[in-house]
Amino acid sequence: MDAAEFRKRGKEMVDYVADYLEKIDKRQVFPDVEPGYLRPLIADCAPQEPESFEDVFKDIEKIIMPGVTHWHSPYFFAYFPAASSFPALLADMLCGGIGCVGFSWGSASEATLISLLAARTKTIRRVQSEKPELTEAEIMGRLVAYASDQAHSSVERAALIGAVKIKNVPSDDTFSVCGSALKKVLDEDKAAGLIPFFFCATLGTTPCCSFDKLLELGPICNKENIWMHIDAAYAGSAFICPEFRHLLNGVEFADSFNFNPHKWLLVNFDCSAMWVKKRSDLIGAFKLEPLYLQHHHQESGLVTDYRHVRLSHQFEHLVLQDERFEICAEVVLGLVCFRLKEQSGEIEHSTTGFVTFDQTSSSSTSVLLSLMIQSKKLHLQGKTILQYEGSNELNEALLKSINEAKKIHLVPCHLREKFVLRFAICSRTVESAHINFAWQHISQLASDLLKTWEQNHHQQQ
Amino acid sequence: MDAAEFRKRGKEMVDYVADYLEKIDKRQVFPDVEPGYLRPLIADCAPQEPESFEDVFKDIEKIIMPGVTHWHSPYFFAYFPAASSFPALLADMLCGGIGCVGFSWGSASEATLISLLAARTKTIRRVQSEKPELTEAEIMGRLVAYASDQAHSSVERAALIGAVKIKNVPSDDTFSVCGSALKKVLDEDKAAGLIPFFFCATLGTTPCCSFDKLLELGPICNKENIWMHIDAAYAGSAFICPEFRHLLNGVEFADSFNFNPHKWLLVNFDCSAMWVKKRSDLIGAFKLEPLYLQHHHQESGLVTDYRHVRLSHQFEHLVLQDERFEICAEVVLGLVCFRLKEQSGEIEHSTTGFVTFDQTSSSSTSVLLSLMIQSKKLHLQGKTILQYEGSNELNEALLKSINEAKKIHLVPCHLREKFVLRFAICSRTVESAHINFAWQHISQLASDLLKTWEQNHHQQQ
Repeated sequence: MDAAEFRKRGKEMVDYVADYLEKIDKRQVFPDVEPGYLRPLIADCAPQEPESFEDVFKDIEKIIMPGVTHWHSPYFFAYFPAASSFPALLADMLCGGIGCVGFSWGSASEATLISLLAARTKTIRRVQSEKPELTEAEIMGRLVAYASDQAHSSVERAALIGAVKIKNVPSDDTFSVCGSALKKVLDEDKAAGLIPFFFCATLGTTPCCSFDKLLELGPICNKENIWMHIDAAYAGSAFICPEFRHLLNGVEFADSFNFNPHKWLLVNFDCSAMWVKKRSDLIGAFKLEPLYLQHHHQESGLVTDYRHVRLSHQFEHLVLQDERFEICAEVVLGLVCFRLKEQSGEIEHSTTGFVTFDQTSSSSTSVLLSLMIQSKKLHLQGKTILQYEGSNELNEALLKSINEAKKIHLVPCHLREKFVLRFAICSRTVESAHINFAWQHISQLASDLLKTWEQNHHQQQ
Repeated sequence: MDAAEFRKRGKEMVDYVADYLEKIDKRQVFPDVEPGYLRPLIADCAPQEPESFEDVFKDIEKIIMPGVTHWHSPYFFAYFPAASSFPALLADMLCGGIGCVGFSWGSASEATLISLLAARTKTIRRVQSEKPELTEAEIMGRLVAYASDQAHSSVERAALIGAVKIKNVPSDDTFSVCGSALKKVLDEDKAAGLIPFFFCATLGTTPCCSFDKLLELGPICNKENIWMHIDAAYAGSAFICPEFRHLLNGVEFADSFNFNPHKWLLVNFDCSAMWVKKRSDLIGAFKLEPLYLQHHHQESGLVTDYRHVRLSHQFEHLVLQDERFEICAEVVLGLVCFRLKEQSGEIEHSTTGFVTFDQTSSSSTSVLLSLMIQSKKLHLQGKTILQYEGSNELNEALLKSINEAKKIHLVPCHLREKFVLRFAICSRTVESAHINFAWQHISQLASDLLKTWEQNHHQQQ
């Protein structure tokens, strides 16, 4: 694509983006697809011949959009807003055009850090099982990472962040690290009681584009339980050329590998591709799953402006007018936490399998109890009088029905032991009418939910 | 700006970017400005009334471009390439338009991590000076970080990465952490021999947008040498409104503060603004300055395609044809390391201040020695015969003259003790003619450098 075609395609893209944002409320806010939907829709390998831009463009609606959660939809009330605006889009176009890399800490550096941290966790666990007499702090104090004296400064920084020692392995006359140099340092350090755990090999060093000798280094690392990370930030792109692929020999010994398509594959900064041999090593080192991230989303959201504090109070007011619901935390900015009210009372249960309620019971109480019995959280045997409370199951069912209807999108959170629905004002384009719609929709789904379960209950009786 | 204006302005921006990239070789590759040039050119505070887009647009050439290093210029040979292409620019426009946040680890999380790591370094140094009998590993094992039980999961992850303990401080009925709750946990932990070092206060928690009580927490943290970081990722934007500013009271006790303009200030993801009370705490924790980053640039570069391996060999060939120069590392991909050759021989120096050379001396030898005497690296007294070697000063002077001429841009590196010039093929648009131009330019500057110093020398004689 030359500049002339970019002028044409760029203007088409501006119109596409404008159309998308102008009509975003017509799209279903949350997608129907399941994780993995994309794999069968794209080719197994890169094409030998380029596709036409028209064909690539068609893939946007055919392949990409069916998988998109529309964060800028006025029906998106999940997480927190992630702003955007037309001037900000223009600024990003300019930034992309200038393409000036203003950072001193980039994407390959993060890959090195992440692999070092995963190796640290893995090694600490292994040593703890082998030598239970050592505390975690004692093990940490003995860990050593290694890299060539030609390695990028980010390796040393990764060790600083990870609070582990790092040592340079001397490179040879061609500025490459060979196996004997690594072995010498390892033998000395092991004799001194240290625990070697990580080696960062470099393919294409920053100073002079030298290549560490993977075929010699890999077997040593594997034998010594040392995580071998390969930093091929620059050179990695070259390995799509057969004539350079031999430089990659020995990659089979690596635990992780990283290269930057943004350096040599015509992708704008930043784009860093990391490969890990054993996924669980990485996931195990960092896994945390708060309720609001349980679908692997980030808690940032779309666009908002300051009207949005007023809109959240509008929603709060609607919730408070419906006595089935309660507000669960003070509404200060653009977030409303609410739920179907907690139910409490007494139930009498007979061996016939039917449940009768005291006069404080509401329709939602019966739903709640049905759900609790269904989900085996409440077992009733014989004729029993029970104190009960809690409506987490009910609110879980409400949230499920809201998100399955896909008219609006919300995520939950826990406040103490309560399962709570988070209504966050997100999109810059949310108006009062969207709030009213969202509330009517939620309210209707709540009624449907309560009614269905009541009917089921009466049918049983 | 509405969608209609975006269509107009977006198309103008497409043309601006196309013009910029088509004529980038006409711009001086490296800017004339000094750090800080921007400050007097922009307003001290945000305007009360918006500027017209025309005025904002004019600022691109007037204010931004004079400070830009043109990474995509065919005269940019520094660092490594940072790719970009017209299709990639189109893809970025689409991504910006969709604005879907696909991450589970975002910008405010990084701010928390960075502040925790800076606090860790600061505390370890302080404790080491107070109690020299403790090893770093022993101190690490006693460090504890704290955050509200309502804090974002990224705080816990930061502690995992930083390899320090973390404890939840119970929040009160309004889901806020108050001073007494923190004090209770601190007292228990200090009694158990632990070292509290970091507290992450949250303004606007993710689950329910609650606010920790800074006015109570801040003085406790300051008294106990605990770094207080404020995570105001979501709520921070609201403090531009006077009616919400009271929520920020107590910020004066904080060591660091972060908020995400991309959540509520109409800036596309991601944009996170971090403030640190004492810059040196942060810089001290991470400072590493390899030669190629000495201007705080990142080692990524611009666009390249595979022709570029051939172009680097073309440059290598030109260097090898000039006997004043040498190649310093094997040229495999798109990087050529070269320098003016090392000089060696004997000199005879007399008290008259003049230097005479043996017959192996070349013109560059005299330049080298003048430079070494000038820079006080070589002191000659009386009549002396000296063995000498090394031409780092000469190559430093050559690089300086290349980068001061601003026709092309290169960065250096060290290979062993040698100061070496790195010529990296970066721009997608580099052609054979640019390589020839660059080499002629370098060669001419080298001749000028050698000649100037020879003349100076002869004048002295």
